[in-house]
Amino acid sequence: MAELYLEDLTVGQRFASRRLRVDAESIKRFAAEFDPQPFHLDEQAAGASLFRGLAASGWHTAALTMRLLVESEFHTAGGLIGASLEELRWPRPVRPGDELRLEIEILAIQPSRSRPGQGIVKIRVVTLNQADKDVQIYVANVVVLGRRKPASGGQAGGVGNV
Amino acid sequence: MAELYLEDLTVGQRFASRRLRVDAESIKRFAAEFDPQPFHLDEQAAGASLFRGLAASGWHTAALTMRLLVESEFHTAGGLIGASLEELRWPRPVRPGDELRLEIEILAIQPSRSRPGQGIVKIRVVTLNQADKDVQIYVANVVVLGRRKPASGGQAGGVGNV
Repeated sequence: MAELYLEDLTVGQRFASRRLRVDAESIKRFAAEFDPQPFHLDEQAAGASLFRGLAASGWHTAALTMRLLVESEFHTAGGLIGASLEELRWPRPVRPGDELRLEIEILAIQPSRSRPGQGIVKIRVVTLNQADKDVQIYVANVVVLGRRKPASGGQAGGVGNV
Repeated sequence: MAELYLEDLTVGQRFASRRLRVDAESIKRFAAEFDPQPFHLDEQAAGASLFRGLAASGWHTAALTMRLLVESEFHTAGGLIGASLEELRWPRPVRPGDELRLEIEILAIQPSRSRPGQGIVKIRVVTLNQADKDVQIYVANVVVLGRRKPASGGQAGGVGNV
């Protein structure tokens, strides 16, 4: 897969991922290590909870989303390094048997002032289940390298951060 | 540990967690499953990356933070169910050997209009390393149950959402 550089990206571009199936065993295994609450660990206890059935930890959904993102068409040079998220929502639970996939869209591109040849790209990452319902939405700012080397000295662009 | 209900909480209250040590093996294991990029998987490759050394995936830090939160003094009735995050940042990387702990503060409390006896509590969760430097900061909205049962009919509070 070709690596994408800052110059290859434009606002409005969209990217897709493969699909990834989530089963009850992996939901319980993640929860046992990172989010040990009854509604993520046990079908019966989950049935009596607000979730009304076993549901993946939101952080499990976020971690699976990262896996899909790393393997997606949004394959940026130097790797995927997230600086921050502006928002993160879980509109509905992920259930055993769900098949997740991503829709990624570029919302904005900001060339770095302090590091010429590098930029911050704002992306919206929507995680959908097999019924095309969104189970997670976030907006992230990621660091993307430029193809061109910075000018000598590397400080021509100003003194701002990022 | 006593369970906290909506009526037990006030804006400005602070809570702490235990400490949790992160080692290189767990950083690599998480990355292999959820964030398979060289700077999370291999010391040598990480040395040549923007991270200049092995660093935990930000999603690993987030998952460990959830573990600490579930076991913290902020032990709410019905469990910790996050509706959304307003912001999530990773100011510095988590390194092998780091010991993480949380500082949790209540920023706002909003009783539910559509579900009397329930509310949304806005918390800031800061994850610190052993040098008291922040490695992750987020602001989350979590659902908290009230001790009082809703009035009969359960709709006296209006028709708004949440």
